[in-house]
Amino acid sequence: MDLATIIGIIGAAAIIITAMVLSGGVGMFMDIPSILIVLVGSIFVVMAKFGLNQFLGAAKVAAKAFMFKSDDPAELIDEIVELADAARKGGLLSLEGKEVSSDFLQGGIQLLVDGHDPEVVKTLLSKDMNKSVERHEQGASIFGALADVSPAMGMIGTLVGLVQMLSAMDDPKSIGPAMAVALLTTFYGAVIANVICLPIAGKLRNRSESEILIKTLIIEGMQSILSGENPRIIEQKLHAYISPKLRASAFER
Amino acid sequence: MDLATIIGIIGAAAIIITAMVLSGGVGMFMDIPSILIVLVGSIFVVMAKFGLNQFLGAAKVAAKAFMFKSDDPAELIDEIVELADAARKGGLLSLEGKEVSSDFLQGGIQLLVDGHDPEVVKTLLSKDMNKSVERHEQGASIFGALADVSPAMGMIGTLVGLVQMLSAMDDPKSIGPAMAVALLTTFYGAVIANVICLPIAGKLRNRSESEILIKTLIIEGMQSILSGENPRIIEQKLHAYISPKLRASAFER
Amino acid sequence: MDLATIIGIIGAAAIIITAMVLSGGVGMFMDIPSILIVLVGSIFVVMAKFGLNQFLGAAKVAAKAFMFKSDDPAELIDEIVELADAARKGGLLSLEGKEVSSDFLQGGIQLLVDGHDPEVVKTLLSKDMNKSVERHEQGASIFGALADVSPAMGMIGTLVGLVQMLSAMDDPKSIGPAMAVALLTTFYGAVIANVICLPIAGKLRNRSESEILIKTLIIEGMQSILSGENPRIIEQKLHAYISPKLRASAFER
Amino acid sequence: MDLATIIGIIGAAAIIITAMVLSGGVGMFMDIPSILIVLVGSIFVVMAKFGLNQFLGAAKVAAKAFMFKSDDPAELIDEIVELADAARKGGLLSLEGKEVSSDFLQGGIQLLVDGHDPEVVKTLLSKDMNKSVERHEQGASIFGALADVSPAMGMIGTLVGLVQMLSAMDDPKSIGPAMAVALLTTFYGAVIANVICLPIAGKLRNRSESEILIKTLIIEGMQSILSGENPRIIEQKLHAYISPKLRASAFER
Amino acid sequence: MDLATIIGIIGAAAIIITAMVLSGGVGMFMDIPSILIVLVGSIFVVMAKFGLNQFLGAAKVAAKAFMFKSDDPAELIDEIVELADAARKGGLLSLEGKEVSSDFLQGGIQLLVDGHDPEVVKTLLSKDMNKSVERHEQGASIFGALADVSPAMGMIGTLVGLVQMLSAMDDPKSIGPAMAVALLTTFYGAVIANVICLPIAGKLRNRSESEILIKTLIIEGMQSILSGENPRIIEQKLHAYISPKLRASAFER
Repeated sequence: MDLATIIGIIGAAAIIITAMVLSGGVGMFMDIPSILIVLVGSIFVVMAKFGLNQFLGAAKVAAKAFMFKSDDPAELIDEIVELADAARKGGLLSLEGKEVSSDFLQGGIQLLVDGHDPEVVKTLLSKDMNKSVERHEQGASIFGALADVSPAMGMIGTLVGLVQMLSAMDDPKSIGPAMAVALLTTFYGAVIANVICLPIAGKLRNRSESEILIKTLIIEGMQSILSGENPRIIEQKLHAYISPKLRASAFER
Repeated sequence: MDLATIIGIIGAAAIIITAMVLSGGVGMFMDIPSILIVLVGSIFVVMAKFGLNQFLGAAKVAAKAFMFKSDDPAELIDEIVELADAARKGGLLSLEGKEVSSDFLQGGIQLLVDGHDPEVVKTLLSKDMNKSVERHEQGASIFGALADVSPAMGMIGTLVGLVQMLSAMDDPKSIGPAMAVALLTTFYGAVIANVICLPIAGKLRNRSESEILIKTLIIEGMQSILSGENPRIIEQKLHAYISPKLRASAFER
Repeated sequence: MDLATIIGIIGAAAIIITAMVLSGGVGMFMDIPSILIVLVGSIFVVMAKFGLNQFLGAAKVAAKAFMFKSDDPAELIDEIVELADAARKGGLLSLEGKEVSSDFLQGGIQLLVDGHDPEVVKTLLSKDMNKSVERHEQGASIFGALADVSPAMGMIGTLVGLVQMLSAMDDPKSIGPAMAVALLTTFYGAVIANVICLPIAGKLRNRSESEILIKTLIIEGMQSILSGENPRIIEQKLHAYISPKLRASAFER
Repeated sequence: MDLATIIGIIGAAAIIITAMVLSGGVGMFMDIPSILIVLVGSIFVVMAKFGLNQFLGAAKVAAKAFMFKSDDPAELIDEIVELADAARKGGLLSLEGKEVSSDFLQGGIQLLVDGHDPEVVKTLLSKDMNKSVERHEQGASIFGALADVSPAMGMIGTLVGLVQMLSAMDDPKSIGPAMAVALLTTFYGAVIANVICLPIAGKLRNRSESEILIKTLIIEGMQSILSGENPRIIEQKLHAYISPKLRASAFER
Repeated sequence: MDLATIIGIIGAAAIIITAMVLSGGVGMFMDIPSILIVLVGSIFVVMAKFGLNQFLGAAKVAAKAFMFKSDDPAELIDEIVELADAARKGGLLSLEGKEVSSDFLQGGIQLLVDGHDPEVVKTLLSKDMNKSVERHEQGASIFGALADVSPAMGMIGTLVGLVQMLSAMDDPKSIGPAMAVALLTTFYGAVIANVICLPIAGKLRNRSESEILIKTLIIEGMQSILSGENPRIIEQKLHAYISPKLRASAFER
């Protein structure tokens, strides 16, 4: 899934670079000052809006979202069913120290082992889930803000270039190249917004949804284990959250 | 209904092609690199946002929505009334193996035959309905994202062309044709968004609504059959969902 | 009220035609192909989105909304009070066959005469009201879609014209007129959207609101008659729905 | 408060006129046909959308909102406390004929004197309050519609001018002035929308909020008087609605 | 946090000034009349919309939000826990006259000392919190309105310049510089909106959220102290509002 984001962004960038090559070479589109004006200017504006901590936090969230694969809900259900089986046979305490695939599930098991109420387990895990949703949401909103600001910074850069060009229109031959450079900031603004920031913001929102699914499965599963439900029933209940194609029962393999 | 979408898109495309022919020939509007830049670039960006699976899934949903005609609610009501009649005379079990027009109805009948509770029947069928609504919604939102991105990719392509043209303005005669080519990506972006993606997204949303109607009729009908209501009453109840003109009673023919 | 819409649209069109005449003649603004491209193209796109039936239905709804005057709420209240008076003196059955101003009121009276429950009367009439609100809403949304699409079709037409003009820039003298023609589709798109479609969509929404008022008055009135309330009280209750200036009591004339 | 609106609009207009004078004279910006096209055209379109009655009603509401100052909540509280004092000493009937600052308060007192229930008093006064809120809302939405339409009419006017200019480009010297005139409608559209209509619409919305405060104070006050509360308590309760700085108690002066 | 806003705005401005210097000097971008037209014009329009008092109040709120650092929630929890400890040992009255970090907390303590009900304490403090949220919201909405209006004023200024330039196109050499000056107002409008007003509006909204957190902590804390809860429990409860990293217990140091 995250591979798709990286491929998508790199692919779109490659398409644009191809367009540059086709129209005569990448060189004339590379103007470091223009890139800095749009990129650094936009980052400053977004930082003014959100504060440094939130800004850096968003970068970290985004990086994490790209580097770690999100869990496979079907595998997770198998894992929970196994845990339920173990709990049925050896009691809740036998779950202590089990190796599990995610920290969140680990935390849930710890709560079971500690002997908390089902209600308390749900409340604590839900609070944790909401916190991470909030973090993803903030990451998405910072990339959304960058996507709003960068075209504006691009336009500001182009206006600066146009004013300069128009003020000193002595040599008609210089008009073309000057205007080309002026347009570059608009170009960078459009690329940063549409090819980089908007897909990342959208991705973080989608990612958040799949994490909600994963964590909801774990919360439901922990509660079911705690109330001693039959592992088969637990599997059936959790399968309702995923698409029918993925519902291969662990009991029929 | 789906015919209208195909005719509409083809008709609008034909109008635009006519405009091209009137202004001197289609040839000068065909620039394969420009088309690829806008189309492939937009697809990459949308893929970055949604992931490959969701993207391909949306294409499949859209294709299905165009190829299969949605059921006629009036005919469906007749069919349900017939089933109710058969169930009244021969019991619920007599419905087993009946040939019906849709898989969803088949699934509903199976639930009846299996002897489930009315509440369970409703819950299971509603969950299925919501899943397919969600799938259509996602299809619509991916085409909506394409419609957002393609004008931006068109503008990026035009900026590339303009920068190239302005950088090398030696021969005044080359300005016109170069700018014409630069504008082509903006043109393709506008066409892809307004003539193709937006109507398909709108269509998928409308289609979703008519499927909700169809499935609601089936859910209501199954429940009524299960509670042994009089077929005439069932027909009356279901007729309330459709417009008066379509309410020809099967009992008065 | 509907007169105002017609006067408004014609007035705005006349203003624009005046502007054309002032700037040298209407002739140069008439370009049949341009008009067809924008108008027919937009209609095709909207048809693709909504389907043929809905599209034609919307046209019918719009036509009706312009041709029939909506009822005067004050007169309607007088009429209901009269009916209440008659019902009090001669019983509900005496209302049968009364000539009334609207079909909806006629239907309501028929329900009274048929001896239905107040609850049933309310449910049936409300469902009918909601259906017509829905129809108006759909009409409004189709004109809204036309208003969204026509500027885009206008821009597409202008891009076609510009590309053609720029590709063949041999004779500098032809640039002006060619660009003038290219701009015409943008012009038509703006006029169709802002002068025709948006006011009609807004009008249909407003119209819907006044119909809700009228039908709410009738529903309330029918219920009051059915529960045998005093005509004076009925009048007072219904007057609460209209502005104080219109509350001339039938009993004080 | 309303003074600020008038000063604001006149000030912004003065700034724009100053800009005209600085750039060479107001004369070249005055083009009566252009003004009429944008202003009258926009009014026609808005009339088409809302109907004549609503349109004229909105103008009246706007005029009233500017001419009458809204009441000072602190003074109003003093007045209500005085009334409560009088009612405590001489009974509710002693309030009859008291001179008060607003019609709404007068109406409230009349309801007290008439011996209505607290519930009835609240219902009747609230309905009156909602009616006036609705009127202000409609006024605001009509000015909002004008602000939407006038830039579009300005663009239409400019397109007419451009098409005319481009069609007859014989004399290169005439291009500049012709284009200047064509741009005037865009200019008027922007000024009408941003300097006149949007602030008035915003003002009417703000005005509506302060009227709700005033009328809520009166409604609360009337109910408190009716239930014979201590004037000091009434003052305290009503002070909770206004900012601490304005809470000078009438009992401590 | 507020430092980030100041650094962000100054940084973005520095980037733009760098762009000016790179393109030939800041001088040609400084045009006092243009700045005044956009800035003063926008302020007049916003004043027309909100009234003078609200406008000046917003400026004050914004200034305060930048000058005063918002409290650190972790330190605040320590402080509340200390108060709870003191109240446990010496009774509520012993809290009188304690030096605390914020006025809001001081007000809360005063309510405790005065012996009010927990419900009353909550109501009074919540009302105070809502008032300050409202003030921040209004500040944000005024800066948001400035961000909406200033690009429009910039465009109006540019149109004035263009009309003037086009009307008097005698000397081709003057076209460039005249157009450069005309573009300056668009440039200023974009800078005022995107680099100054939008980040401040966003900041005030974020600031409001952190103040809500601080005040919610105080309200919860006051209630817990009043009901005589154990300081450790109070700490645990309040820690739930902040991120785990900040939850260093005062009892474990």
